[in-house]
Amino acid sequence: MGRPLKTKEDLHVRIGVLKGMAVMTPDALSSVAYATDQMEDILAGLIIATSTHAYVTNVLGFSMLGTSIIVGLAFLLFFAYRNIIRRYPLGGGAYAIGINDLGKYWGLSAASTLIVGYTLTVAVSVAAGVDAIAPVIPFIAHHKLLFNIILTLLIMIVNLRGTGESASVFVPFTYVFIGCIILLGVSAVIKGLLHPTIIELPTYAGMHAVQGMGMFLFLKMFANGCSALTGIEAVSNSVPVFREPSAKRAQRLLLTLVITLSLLFFIVSSVAMVHGLRYNPDVPLINQESMLIFGTHGIGYIMTVIISISTMCILTIAANTAFTGCPALWSSMARDGFMPRWVLHKGTRLVYSNGIVFLTFISLVLTICFDAQVDRLMPLYGVSVFYTFTISQLGMVVRVLKERKTKWLLSAIGSATGVVLTGGACLIFGITRFRDGAWLVFICVPAMILAFSRIQKHYMQLRQDLKYDLTRPMQPRKESITIVPIASINKSSVSALEYAVANFRNVIAVTVIADDSEEKCRQRTDKIEAEWEKLNSGIRLVVLHSQYRAVGKRLQRFIEFELQTYPPENITVVIPQFITKRWWHKLLHNKTGNILMAWLVINKHIKVMTVPYHLER
Amino acid sequence: MGRPLKTKEDLHVRIGVLKGMAVMTPDALSSVAYATDQMEDILAGLIIATSTHAYVTNVLGFSMLGTSIIVGLAFLLFFAYRNIIRRYPLGGGAYAIGINDLGKYWGLSAASTLIVGYTLTVAVSVAAGVDAIAPVIPFIAHHKLLFNIILTLLIMIVNLRGTGESASVFVPFTYVFIGCIILLGVSAVIKGLLHPTIIELPTYAGMHAVQGMGMFLFLKMFANGCSALTGIEAVSNSVPVFREPSAKRAQRLLLTLVITLSLLFFIVSSVAMVHGLRYNPDVPLINQESMLIFGTHGIGYIMTVIISISTMCILTIAANTAFTGCPALWSSMARDGFMPRWVLHKGTRLVYSNGIVFLTFISLVLTICFDAQVDRLMPLYGVSVFYTFTISQLGMVVRVLKERKTKWLLSAIGSATGVVLTGGACLIFGITRFRDGAWLVFICVPAMILAFSRIQKHYMQLRQDLKYDLTRPMQPRKESITIVPIASINKSSVSALEYAVANFRNVIAVTVIADDSEEKCRQRTDKIEAEWEKLNSGIRLVVLHSQYRAVGKRLQRFIEFELQTYPPENITVVIPQFITKRWWHKLLHNKTGNILMAWLVINKHIKVMTVPYHLER
Repeated sequence: MGRPLKTKEDLHVRIGVLKGMAVMTPDALSSVAYATDQMEDILAGLIIATSTHAYVTNVLGFSMLGTSIIVGLAFLLFFAYRNIIRRYPLGGGAYAIGINDLGKYWGLSAASTLIVGYTLTVAVSVAAGVDAIAPVIPFIAHHKLLFNIILTLLIMIVNLRGTGESASVFVPFTYVFIGCIILLGVSAVIKGLLHPTIIELPTYAGMHAVQGMGMFLFLKMFANGCSALTGIEAVSNSVPVFREPSAKRAQRLLLTLVITLSLLFFIVSSVAMVHGLRYNPDVPLINQESMLIFGTHGIGYIMTVIISISTMCILTIAANTAFTGCPALWSSMARDGFMPRWVLHKGTRLVYSNGIVFLTFISLVLTICFDAQVDRLMPLYGVSVFYTFTISQLGMVVRVLKERKTKWLLSAIGSATGVVLTGGACLIFGITRFRDGAWLVFICVPAMILAFSRIQKHYMQLRQDLKYDLTRPMQPRKESITIVPIASINKSSVSALEYAVANFRNVIAVTVIADDSEEKCRQRTDKIEAEWEKLNSGIRLVVLHSQYRAVGKRLQRFIEFELQTYPPENITVVIPQFITKRWWHKLLHNKTGNILMAWLVINKHIKVMTVPYHLER
Repeated sequence: MGRPLKTKEDLHVRIGVLKGMAVMTPDALSSVAYATDQMEDILAGLIIATSTHAYVTNVLGFSMLGTSIIVGLAFLLFFAYRNIIRRYPLGGGAYAIGINDLGKYWGLSAASTLIVGYTLTVAVSVAAGVDAIAPVIPFIAHHKLLFNIILTLLIMIVNLRGTGESASVFVPFTYVFIGCIILLGVSAVIKGLLHPTIIELPTYAGMHAVQGMGMFLFLKMFANGCSALTGIEAVSNSVPVFREPSAKRAQRLLLTLVITLSLLFFIVSSVAMVHGLRYNPDVPLINQESMLIFGTHGIGYIMTVIISISTMCILTIAANTAFTGCPALWSSMARDGFMPRWVLHKGTRLVYSNGIVFLTFISLVLTICFDAQVDRLMPLYGVSVFYTFTISQLGMVVRVLKERKTKWLLSAIGSATGVVLTGGACLIFGITRFRDGAWLVFICVPAMILAFSRIQKHYMQLRQDLKYDLTRPMQPRKESITIVPIASINKSSVSALEYAVANFRNVIAVTVIADDSEEKCRQRTDKIEAEWEKLNSGIRLVVLHSQYRAVGKRLQRFIEFELQTYPPENITVVIPQFITKRWWHKLLHNKTGNILMAWLVINKHIKVMTVPYHLER
């Protein structure tokens, strides 16, 4: 993963707005590639339903209306998140605002929905990337799941190498995509000016025909178009990855993102509108547009191919937004005790390595469980996006009302409008897509909130239980005894004895004699005692006999009955153990040492350690 | 498995001839149930082949001839093994005689073939038992493999409970079977005397017809009939399980076995002969005979059922012969270093528990690999039986020639005849059944011999490598240091410090500070130093800073560079570790302690131990 980075190098690996665009915006920008299509999808259904009316040919004006509303919403969110970033420069976004301004459960619910969104982003983006390549390379088409896994792991590795590194990798893809769409828009305008006849504006008759489409369908279209606003939240979660002044840079990135997103979205939607392009499940609108504007021959064809490849890339690296935002969110949560401590700190490359690996793990589980057919989870997205927005704006309202700074009323009204709009959208989404999968949110989110609360409770209890009263003096040193059980006098046991004598205060050696016949037991006792005499170690040897030939049990009884004077927590057993060199040699030994350890560890108070003696051959 | 037994209780759990019959003879006796059938099988094939000759009706005389030869062989073996038992009262049979009188590889080859035979005995006997019950209970027929496993485990458990116990369990089955066959013989004689007309002796014409069967077929028939002589070897392997004088008792048992075996074998073969019964794969000869003699109604029918049930039982408990013989053989081999040490000693119930479990394991592997279709391995049997006999008699010849006691020439000639007979049989068996599976012996046995030799080599090397030169004094006590790494001052770390101070000679505490920012590092350093002051432990605290946020690495560097004055083998790390109460709590902790242990264990010389602190909730 590259050389470890020092803590003080943190400032050097931070990024600016330029690279920030590469790591945080792909999720939002890639929505341009499908948001218009998804709105058109609803309209296409409607056109088919009312196809008896011959004059229903171009209803794209409605998708343009949807685009405008979504762009307006994006700007509203920009203002909201600008405030959040200013107020929470350490990141955390909707979670931080929820926890601090609204209360624990509001914050946790925002965090849960965000996590759902992030996890899905990874799974869905990678699947979209693989789906896009599959038709071209049959081998990938036959091993989709495998390539999903490989791609996810690749993105994980890039991220584990550090934020700066991952930004460098993704920068070209992002800017090529932005450049392509802008080029498309410019070319469309030029072409429109040169050949005004090819423009096919929506007719009033067409618009009139679908006027009766009803609020429900329109909202469904709108909700579909909104599904990719998650990217905006990600910026507010990862403010500290920017160079100082990080809050300012984050806000600047947010503005750049919203403007770019709006521009691209307008280009795609309006080109589709003025040329009366229709939704086609096999050819995305972007491809239709590039074929129309650039043609299907020569340099035009190359342009079309470039656009479709860059679209594919941006769809895939959308996953990266989650890899930047989610571990940062988890770290914020871990700081408050709602997530395991191991996601709190940064790894050797100054990114939240554990969080990144954990996110990969979850999204791989999702991918494998749903066999890379993650499309079915898409409805969960929308609910989570809007819920998060609602929470953050609600938090802003509460805060403004509490603080009552200058222009508080205006600010409160602005945020309250946001609450109503996004809250409404959330409700609509929840209702219209309830049966499609949004209901899962009502199971996942409460379950996650419960888990987070239990985790916090555990950490609080732990802190209490481990708290040491510093006014109480440490216990004075008590008597202690160290037992070295030996089977015979050999290099391994002597090295253990030497170690024990050098390190421990009070050492005795113990040997347990157990043989099939009493005769042999006596012989062995005499032999070991004679050898012990010769060794002249200065250590007392206790010879025990086990009538039941169970070394561990006999030793335990010795400890229990004959070492009663010692406090049980100060009894240590030091086991000599020779380590064989080849695997099959292990099968040839009694493992008395290991069995002994297991025996003694059952008795909670006896400490056991081994002194390994490594065999040469 | 019952209460543990003391070593001196060994004499009480030994058995006499009566119980010995139950644990060691079922394998040999059960052969009565199929040996005649197997000989008839060959003849039946011949009859079909020559069925154009109308007068070929009763060729059972040939099977009677085979029976006589086999019985003769059994008596020959009795004399051979009587000598072996006298000479090797500690057991070991052909293996012991091979190792001591002929040489290492002779002994090991005998042991290998014996082990092949014993393992097959278990697998084949259990499979035969299950096959016998299967037609009656459909559930068993559908789960044969499962019941094979259950039955094997049952026999294992009975054996683990001790020799005396297993004998008690199997006594009734053995004696009921013997009683049944004798009753059958007596009834047949009575019936024959009362109704001489039913007797249908083989005609000369019939015998003449198959005279051309050729040596090859006859020998094949003979070899088939011999397949169950393994039981005789088992007695010589387990001499020490008998009450004193054990050798005498073992010899007496051997005689009883050979006489009983001959009697039963003659009864079954001759009843079949005088009534002209034919081989029928669906109805064994014993069942045909009991139906003929006792009839198929009323009390006669009950008799038939009893005979078939007891046959079934004896076939199954034949496995027990292996459970008595094989672990004893392994123990003898382990004494010489050819088997892992853990099969050497007896367990708490004074049987070779590890050997019993190991035998069960191997035969279960065989059963599962061959899906309870072990019949295909039957040819291996014959080769192994005769090879073992040959080795043991060859050993006797060599020994007699060496010692030249009284009547040595006669004894040598007797044994040499045995060598020629059994060696010939072995050769015949190997050739006639080579393609049926006997070739496997030529792979298994050399592989096993190689394995045994490598095991012995390892033990010899180990003894050399571990040998401690007692004339060399033990190293004088060197300097040592014990490090207690702590993350903060809490009950867990204080209890580890208290333990370390009480037990070890020289203790220091170390804390590694690593945080995301330098500011925080400084705060934490000040905090822990202030708290340490208050604790007043008398231990030196070393505060380390890790720029790379890697606690393990930093600690290792500290040990390597700052503790150079201490001999590396006398550095101990005592890690405080709190043990959580619920499984999911484990997921919430950094496991720094465990990671640290892994880190330090990589460095071979640093000893690591943990001091657990058990959380209450």
